[in-house]
Amino acid sequence: MSGSVYGTIFKLSTFGESHGTAIGGVIDGVPSNYSIDVEKIQLELDRRRPGQSYIVSQRKESDRVQLLSGIFEGKTTGAPIGFLIPNGDQRSADYEHIKDTYRPSHADFTYEKKYGIRDFRGGGRSSARETACRIVAGSVAKQLLENKGIQFSTYVDQVGSIRLNDSSFFLRDAIESNAVRCPDNHIAEKMERHIMDVKKQGDTIGGCIRCIIQHVPVGLGEPVFDKLHAELGKAMLSINAVKGIEFGSGFSSVEMLGSEHNDLINSDGSTKTNHSGGIQGGISNGMPIEFRLAFKPVATIMRSQESITQKGDVIALAGKGRHDPCVVPRAVPIVEAMAAIVILDFYLRNKTVCL
Amino acid sequence: MSGSVYGTIFKLSTFGESHGTAIGGVIDGVPSNYSIDVEKIQLELDRRRPGQSYIVSQRKESDRVQLLSGIFEGKTTGAPIGFLIPNGDQRSADYEHIKDTYRPSHADFTYEKKYGIRDFRGGGRSSARETACRIVAGSVAKQLLENKGIQFSTYVDQVGSIRLNDSSFFLRDAIESNAVRCPDNHIAEKMERHIMDVKKQGDTIGGCIRCIIQHVPVGLGEPVFDKLHAELGKAMLSINAVKGIEFGSGFSSVEMLGSEHNDLINSDGSTKTNHSGGIQGGISNGMPIEFRLAFKPVATIMRSQESITQKGDVIALAGKGRHDPCVVPRAVPIVEAMAAIVILDFYLRNKTVCL
Amino acid sequence: MSGSVYGTIFKLSTFGESHGTAIGGVIDGVPSNYSIDVEKIQLELDRRRPGQSYIVSQRKESDRVQLLSGIFEGKTTGAPIGFLIPNGDQRSADYEHIKDTYRPSHADFTYEKKYGIRDFRGGGRSSARETACRIVAGSVAKQLLENKGIQFSTYVDQVGSIRLNDSSFFLRDAIESNAVRCPDNHIAEKMERHIMDVKKQGDTIGGCIRCIIQHVPVGLGEPVFDKLHAELGKAMLSINAVKGIEFGSGFSSVEMLGSEHNDLINSDGSTKTNHSGGIQGGISNGMPIEFRLAFKPVATIMRSQESITQKGDVIALAGKGRHDPCVVPRAVPIVEAMAAIVILDFYLRNKTVCL
Amino acid sequence: MSGSVYGTIFKLSTFGESHGTAIGGVIDGVPSNYSIDVEKIQLELDRRRPGQSYIVSQRKESDRVQLLSGIFEGKTTGAPIGFLIPNGDQRSADYEHIKDTYRPSHADFTYEKKYGIRDFRGGGRSSARETACRIVAGSVAKQLLENKGIQFSTYVDQVGSIRLNDSSFFLRDAIESNAVRCPDNHIAEKMERHIMDVKKQGDTIGGCIRCIIQHVPVGLGEPVFDKLHAELGKAMLSINAVKGIEFGSGFSSVEMLGSEHNDLINSDGSTKTNHSGGIQGGISNGMPIEFRLAFKPVATIMRSQESITQKGDVIALAGKGRHDPCVVPRAVPIVEAMAAIVILDFYLRNKTVCL
Repeated sequence: MSGSVYGTIFKLSTFGESHGTAIGGVIDGVPSNYSIDVEKIQLELDRRRPGQSYIVSQRKESDRVQLLSGIFEGKTTGAPIGFLIPNGDQRSADYEHIKDTYRPSHADFTYEKKYGIRDFRGGGRSSARETACRIVAGSVAKQLLENKGIQFSTYVDQVGSIRLNDSSFFLRDAIESNAVRCPDNHIAEKMERHIMDVKKQGDTIGGCIRCIIQHVPVGLGEPVFDKLHAELGKAMLSINAVKGIEFGSGFSSVEMLGSEHNDLINSDGSTKTNHSGGIQGGISNGMPIEFRLAFKPVATIMRSQESITQKGDVIALAGKGRHDPCVVPRAVPIVEAMAAIVILDFYLRNKTVCL
Repeated sequence: MSGSVYGTIFKLSTFGESHGTAIGGVIDGVPSNYSIDVEKIQLELDRRRPGQSYIVSQRKESDRVQLLSGIFEGKTTGAPIGFLIPNGDQRSADYEHIKDTYRPSHADFTYEKKYGIRDFRGGGRSSARETACRIVAGSVAKQLLENKGIQFSTYVDQVGSIRLNDSSFFLRDAIESNAVRCPDNHIAEKMERHIMDVKKQGDTIGGCIRCIIQHVPVGLGEPVFDKLHAELGKAMLSINAVKGIEFGSGFSSVEMLGSEHNDLINSDGSTKTNHSGGIQGGISNGMPIEFRLAFKPVATIMRSQESITQKGDVIALAGKGRHDPCVVPRAVPIVEAMAAIVILDFYLRNKTVCL
Repeated sequence: MSGSVYGTIFKLSTFGESHGTAIGGVIDGVPSNYSIDVEKIQLELDRRRPGQSYIVSQRKESDRVQLLSGIFEGKTTGAPIGFLIPNGDQRSADYEHIKDTYRPSHADFTYEKKYGIRDFRGGGRSSARETACRIVAGSVAKQLLENKGIQFSTYVDQVGSIRLNDSSFFLRDAIESNAVRCPDNHIAEKMERHIMDVKKQGDTIGGCIRCIIQHVPVGLGEPVFDKLHAELGKAMLSINAVKGIEFGSGFSSVEMLGSEHNDLINSDGSTKTNHSGGIQGGISNGMPIEFRLAFKPVATIMRSQESITQKGDVIALAGKGRHDPCVVPRAVPIVEAMAAIVILDFYLRNKTVCL
Repeated sequence: MSGSVYGTIFKLSTFGESHGTAIGGVIDGVPSNYSIDVEKIQLELDRRRPGQSYIVSQRKESDRVQLLSGIFEGKTTGAPIGFLIPNGDQRSADYEHIKDTYRPSHADFTYEKKYGIRDFRGGGRSSARETACRIVAGSVAKQLLENKGIQFSTYVDQVGSIRLNDSSFFLRDAIESNAVRCPDNHIAEKMERHIMDVKKQGDTIGGCIRCIIQHVPVGLGEPVFDKLHAELGKAMLSINAVKGIEFGSGFSSVEMLGSEHNDLINSDGSTKTNHSGGIQGGISNGMPIEFRLAFKPVATIMRSQESITQKGDVIALAGKGRHDPCVVPRAVPIVEAMAAIVILDFYLRNKTVCL
């Protein structure tokens, strides 16, 4: 598989399947001598946890993380941090019915063809359950970056066609004030209703997440291939269900003129507009880094669908299990975690620009 | 800088500034014993070359590539291919006026702050000139992939608000039948007119490119971080002026229901729709791989703009030089080159799934 | 720290300190669909375990490994294998006396200066305890390589000045027939006596290990930097206490003439001699791969030594704890594990030489 | 081939065959804003150049390096440095006779079996000619390290059985005072005579090189796999003809007692002895880093040898061409170059130990 290690200096290696004994990982390249608060990690995990509200999957997982190494008397030692999240509620029996069939728009078919074998219980390695490990590493990264004043604002800005028309840097409290994680309670209420409607129909719906990162110093990003937004793009597109990403003006820039789009520079080096999304030539320019992600509707629906068996027989596949009608509320901490991992890695890489 | 090497097994290392002696690179990990046609590489370079039509930059560069190693009696030996493209038309004097100033939405400011020094001639390393090296490696990759029947269709599908409403796999002849590289001549004509209008105003305009890759075998992609679309995303976002990318249904998936979006599977393993864009769980499923890229308007405009000097003084910056009013026609071969590099790298990585 | 990930395709990421909760790791890039026998892994761990015989450290650690993922119904799935070895006997109190002092020829001083913090319990991350994780990954690699007929013979060939004058490919039974792991029982007996003599004096002694790998196919090794013996060299030198390595004729080749040293080739491609140690131009040639390692005497001795405190005060440091008088008997499985990891990684890399 | 890129942050990618158009490479990750003196690079190349004295190969190559990028107004910009060394004297005809035969202890057989094709002219990529590129990168690294006071002393300390019994840090002048590069002129004279004797017989002889690196700061090295001496070991073993390496006390440590071998620590952190060779726990401790390399006798001899053709027919292979009777005098600058590359890379990596 050989794709379960991420990062250059701050490096995350993860393991674990949806219904195995445990998931976990190793974080290498952790700067030494910084305090890490385990409870903060747990709080982030709780934001991703199923069963946290009535609009998400009702699967029961406590998702308690154990840090096994790399911390001595409360501080990072520079040694790798190993961590473990035991798997709780493993109703493998729920998946016996898909043992020999491929679910539409899942990874069943591609995993089986690629590896010649498939752990079918809950999607095995292809399950979004592995993202819990990213949250552990991301929370470590975020705590380290806080020492440098770097801050994140990540929230839902679209569910179906309901969209928030405000791209401000919202504080955590506003984002956490409702189950959708959309900082405008009025819009959030509409989104919730829509999610519940869709759920009642046994269906699912897509959505968008916006992420803004403030106080990133000028200079992060390594041209020409490892541009900051290129690596952020990879990190985000590696999250389950993400179908697209745009930075700053993004797809709307296509219809703009250069004279409209150019970010004029103030005498202090800041820019009057931020169409660039905080990155120019692949390097952060000190303005807030901004991007927006499209999530497709969750593939598991509670309706019967046509599909095929391993032998190629066409069958009707019934909907089963406990799933999310809309993935974005639980994806918010995952996006923020991956963003923090990338920013920290580039922060460290940027230290090597001189002797 | 440490970001000028790309790929895992098929690895490209590039060098060179816009107005230096030469640009070039090293391609490592080239599979041995395959024929490489240097003229095919040159043809791709000619598609990126300035001065190729009246709608692109009129800078004169012949961009002749020299292969220096790794090929013996017409065949790859497995040794790295070193290559060189001497720089021709180097009017460095054109850039004396920006020596001490930062152009809006260029990399002048970020490069200088990061490195403490800046080769200001033509943008130095931040110039899109470096993408010529990507084309050399991409053409080598494409020639290798042709042995496996893998084919690319890359074309302009939007300029400003003028959009092609057809996402077919167009053949090269149709794409090359006009200067815009939009395979519908009627739409292309509108686009050309729009580009020339914008140019007359000394302004620039954005656009979109679509890329479709056919006959990719099932199994390319390395979860969980090195998903095929995640790496394609990084590769594309590393191209100058790209502000967004979407795969398959992309941003439009946000408003779809799961029951609409799911790609039902035929008994032969193909799918009835291709909202997934040929990738499920980060692994190619045998359907065409499809993505679409947003390019912002070129930052260099022929109009006066407010900007600042190194010292922070506000100045009026006059437009100068020979630039593209719209970048997408010349970006088509760059996109295809990066796509070929990624596909080949994952093709080789996938060979290690068993002993 | 950023040095706890090893390998290119078959990749091992480890964590854990001597006296933490547990040590463990993640093995990524495991080829799919092969059977793994956990008991075989345990057997290798038992060969490294302290307390296994009277000539090694009497520390008590059961070293039971738990595989947490990547295996489904007894077979590898291609997903990463996460594993854990809980730490048992953690007499941290044994190390309170070195909290503020640096032991001679240990990593106390260098770790503290580099990281600004040190987990002093049992050497923390610098303890050879981490090599248990290498054994887990190495045993997985060895089991995979067995499918290709590749076999290892690793044994002690020198303790102090007592040397085995036979460099044959010895079978496991011969090697395991005594506590020293020297396949000649007569020589082994002398070595044991020497080790016990040295131990009685509270001292330690060095030794050598030879490793021979049979039936490696022609073609493993990636010039010019990743030559097979170069990477084997790195892998071996990363093992605690290794001070030198030589391949084939090694240091004795220095005094030989080319006409003596050259390995003449038989008509079947094998060679009459094997001064090259099975590798030519950095690539395996089908002959047995042979190398020999020098291990320094263990730094922890049961005698008083002069040393310094953190503040630079000179002190007399008393010997304490339960340590090995000679490291080579327990290092045999570690050497073999690292060899297997390297060979498997290059076996997989070699698969990418063609499409 | 995929093994022609070396390093983590300071990264060298090389290309080129013995008798192709040119050799060259790309150095990525060069710290910005430092002066580079091209003449110093040329001086190092001249020390490796054939034809420099009567005891080395009389092949004529001027080996003039051209730097193509990454330097602006005499200073590094942080952008990759591309460089080229055109091949001069390419008497390919000299090699027609080995087109279908495999030379003993050369890479002919292994390259052909691995790649299915072989550039037989002068050994192609397997020729030590590629090491000229390492010297370019190594000289750049050395010039950067000089800013930090780090200094190298690399010299021949053995030819055949003639050995220098002094392991001091010799200055460049002493080393360059004779053709052998052994800093004791009396011993050097004996070595020269021995080399000429061996040459007259059409034969070759091995030798040893010692390298000492002074003023390396405490803290370089990244446990547990990327220990400083492990990576130095890989770098050295990747040099043609190297068969062994030992650090500090090396193979002689095997016969020592721990109480003799331990390096007692002075109150300033220095040690009374340096058996550790300047590295403890894989991290530099501030003492001089010391290692010694064994080079086998050159495989090309001017005598007839038995060998085989591609078809497996046994033949008598006549000696031809212009080769070195002993490789160590020309290998001195290569060893130093690789040492500098490793030290600089770890110097930069060590900067990421904190935020």
